[in-house]
Amino acid sequence: MINAAGREIPADIQGYKQVKGYAGAFATQPPAGARKAGAKLKAVYPGENKLLNSIEEAIEAAGLRDGMTISFHHHFRNGDYVMNAVIAAIARKGIKGLTLAPSSFLDTNDELIPFFQQGVLIAAETSGLRNKLGHFLTTNHMARPTILRSHGGRVRAMESGELKIDVAFIGAPVCDTYGNINGVHGSAACGSMGYAMVDSRMADTVVAITDNLVEHPLCPVSIPQYQVDYIVKVDCIGDPKGISTGALRVTSNPRDLHLAKLAARVIEHAGYFKEGFGMQLGAGAATVAAGKYLREVMLREQVAANFAIGGIVGSFCDLLDEGLIKTLFDVQSFDARTIQSLRDNPRHQEYDCTFYANPWNKGPMVNKLDYVVLGATEVDIHFNVNVMTDSNGIMMGALGGHPDASAGAKCTIICAPLLRGRLPMVTDAVQTVSTPGETVDIIVTDRGVAVNPKRQDLRENLKHSGLPLMAIEELRDMAYELGGKPAPLKLSDEIVAIVEYRDGTVLDVIRRPIL
Amino acid sequence: MINAAGREIPADIQGYKQVKGYAGAFATQPPAGARKAGAKLKAVYPGENKLLNSIEEAIEAAGLRDGMTISFHHHFRNGDYVMNAVIAAIARKGIKGLTLAPSSFLDTNDELIPFFQQGVLIAAETSGLRNKLGHFLTTNHMARPTILRSHGGRVRAMESGELKIDVAFIGAPVCDTYGNINGVHGSAACGSMGYAMVDSRMADTVVAITDNLVEHPLCPVSIPQYQVDYIVKVDCIGDPKGISTGALRVTSNPRDLHLAKLAARVIEHAGYFKEGFGMQLGAGAATVAAGKYLREVMLREQVAANFAIGGIVGSFCDLLDEGLIKTLFDVQSFDARTIQSLRDNPRHQEYDCTFYANPWNKGPMVNKLDYVVLGATEVDIHFNVNVMTDSNGIMMGALGGHPDASAGAKCTIICAPLLRGRLPMVTDAVQTVSTPGETVDIIVTDRGVAVNPKRQDLRENLKHSGLPLMAIEELRDMAYELGGKPAPLKLSDEIVAIVEYRDGTVLDVIRRPIL
Repeated sequence: MINAAGREIPADIQGYKQVKGYAGAFATQPPAGARKAGAKLKAVYPGENKLLNSIEEAIEAAGLRDGMTISFHHHFRNGDYVMNAVIAAIARKGIKGLTLAPSSFLDTNDELIPFFQQGVLIAAETSGLRNKLGHFLTTNHMARPTILRSHGGRVRAMESGELKIDVAFIGAPVCDTYGNINGVHGSAACGSMGYAMVDSRMADTVVAITDNLVEHPLCPVSIPQYQVDYIVKVDCIGDPKGISTGALRVTSNPRDLHLAKLAARVIEHAGYFKEGFGMQLGAGAATVAAGKYLREVMLREQVAANFAIGGIVGSFCDLLDEGLIKTLFDVQSFDARTIQSLRDNPRHQEYDCTFYANPWNKGPMVNKLDYVVLGATEVDIHFNVNVMTDSNGIMMGALGGHPDASAGAKCTIICAPLLRGRLPMVTDAVQTVSTPGETVDIIVTDRGVAVNPKRQDLRENLKHSGLPLMAIEELRDMAYELGGKPAPLKLSDEIVAIVEYRDGTVLDVIRRPIL
Repeated sequence: MINAAGREIPADIQGYKQVKGYAGAFATQPPAGARKAGAKLKAVYPGENKLLNSIEEAIEAAGLRDGMTISFHHHFRNGDYVMNAVIAAIARKGIKGLTLAPSSFLDTNDELIPFFQQGVLIAAETSGLRNKLGHFLTTNHMARPTILRSHGGRVRAMESGELKIDVAFIGAPVCDTYGNINGVHGSAACGSMGYAMVDSRMADTVVAITDNLVEHPLCPVSIPQYQVDYIVKVDCIGDPKGISTGALRVTSNPRDLHLAKLAARVIEHAGYFKEGFGMQLGAGAATVAAGKYLREVMLREQVAANFAIGGIVGSFCDLLDEGLIKTLFDVQSFDARTIQSLRDNPRHQEYDCTFYANPWNKGPMVNKLDYVVLGATEVDIHFNVNVMTDSNGIMMGALGGHPDASAGAKCTIICAPLLRGRLPMVTDAVQTVSTPGETVDIIVTDRGVAVNPKRQDLRENLKHSGLPLMAIEELRDMAYELGGKPAPLKLSDEIVAIVEYRDGTVLDVIRRPIL
């Protein structure tokens, strides 16, 4: 079948649920009468002890068995010590055939490759895949294809019962002796626990792993004791330096800064830049830098935002302190400045991932966005975005909240260079659709800005902005002229991953490249 | 059958689920493999509007139909305008046969009697019943007996699927245009939204009713937008003066003060009065006053509590400010001082009712109590407590968190006068068992203190406390001598109410008295 993003999707995919093709951004609704899935009912009675001596003991107490599904959160990003340590312990215990369903993977999880090779892990469900692990899962046969979901899509899958977590392991920067957790205290403070809050609520068994065990009760509480089964104290759960890495470094790249400046100008002129607007900036170099230029515009025009959401970066905390943003909602804190702000500023609110982005609740925050500025690996003339595969077809990115915010915002702005090296980044068709073009409004490249033809209103608003407006086809032509039209990738028939849209339909499939 | 509280329970009760008798405080566990119930999956998409013009419109939009179950929260206590107004609107629309399942009723709900008479309402499930409505539901035949549940038992019933709320109406002291709610802003601020937080999460449809509609997004958020379907703005939702009424007035009654002083001395000597202890004081006159004497002991002995929980009163906020309590957990705020403290003091934490008291989760706060001091209408020689029926067998009280805290605390202290007027309050057998004697440790009366014989450890600790220790039978004898042994009530066979223990078993039944 050809889905609504124009992608050919098989009617059946081995090891995957019944295929339903993407039918449009809001076309696939919750099944009539369906109810939210719930975790197992468990009672912990007075006097019972949750403290265990080791990760091994917790694995036993949790009843972890071959074939189960386990989860982790990625708030520590490249500083995380928990996921690798737990899976090594699981392997030592001889447990096999697990599905690994963390909120995301980072470079540090390359260490997991041997456990996939040994059959301890046989499948993955995640928002992102990077580095060697991404390469490994693109080029090797697993028991089931990797399922890629957006942050909102992952919660939807959990709440609709499609993704059932047997055991969630929660790295806890601070945990009291009865299981209350927050992310703002301790040497491995990571800030918001937004993804872990969902796993703690939905998993049948929850194991807290902490290097900072304190007296009961903790204050404030982000994850409550009544969702936590067991607690293990270890020496160290993570390296705070690893939290702020990769895409999140403040850029000095002139092209990124140029893109950022253009994006800020789009925001100023596209029609929603009014007192009380709401915004999100993605975690890429250009998108983060856009905040800097936007601040200048906000000060000059005396316009403040009612809120900003997303993963939060330090520059947003500065805007909060200056009164240029009235409140922040933080599902993931990207740097030390943000963690401190979440701890100390009551207008900096922690929220969980259903509140942020779940398409099947009574209104996530993304629904109220006026603007979101996001990055892309490549875009195409249908405004489809790829953030998931590189030019060789290897998985090396993360859906994150990209499809969620794009669907929610009144104006979705994508920043991408026209070329990377000699490779065109505006093409006839992206290799992998990770965010559908119908939810994308404006493409900002270093050589010109294209407005989705279905948004003539935005085009009209930008007419006198001084921005270099072009048709998307002109950008493609320019890119092809400079870089040459890329030859199509050679792909095998094997589907190694499925890009689920946030509503659980199949937006695209990723086939194993013949390298 | 005779249950574990010694009460005769019918094998079948018309209009009630399959009867399971009370089997002991922790004997009845969640069914093997059972999962938490979930609300209907609903999607609210960008651009959809939740604001409606009237309560009538919300009733229509919610799809309220004959036979459904609706809920309300009682944080406004006698200041609540919402429940009566909504039910009057429902009656005007001709809807009938509803089950009314609020977190509790208060005196002001006497206005609902005509709607029970007219068949708009046909049954009630609640924690408390007072005044004329209590009398009415004790003496009239309803379609099904009233189900009385503790605060923790109500959440358990919702999460186990026994109590399914079709539509929850939430009185919101402040609500933004997308449904975010808190209880600390606005002219009808009620403080914690602890009960309403559960209803918002579990009900299929949630209607927020507010007199304080503000711009999106609110800060802080107690009930999130993604749990709210509709919003109605009205002129006034409640009278703040009504929140602090009844049992919560500061007492100057010498007998209450005497009981309070004895209770404080029990706390000092019973064995758990150590740095870092945890406590709850009930909402009765003597129990609230106990806080005053306890403060003196804490200052003298230089002992601070790690936490206090429950419904919170202003005197606890003073202790928090003084550093004598390290953190408060607040499910219900009983006065203006408490509401202000919850708003301004980050160590005063709002929490919901499952966190407080649900026996079937992974550990509510009541499990960690060292002490709880609670009131009683009457007690008996088996240490059973009645807080639910008066000497005529009429329902006039509230289970509240009484059975929950009693089950959780290491030491449960009950304060009651030996006589009320000429009526003995220590008897051979209470009229209604609302908290089972096996969870009660010490009875404090104005004429003596009795320790449950199964707690020889406490008795030993109190030996040199100077407290007037007596056997419970001695207290009963004294009460009978002074007041005479009361004649048994004449009761019909009809069961008008069921006292469910927090685990969903039948602790006792209430039969219609022949007056």
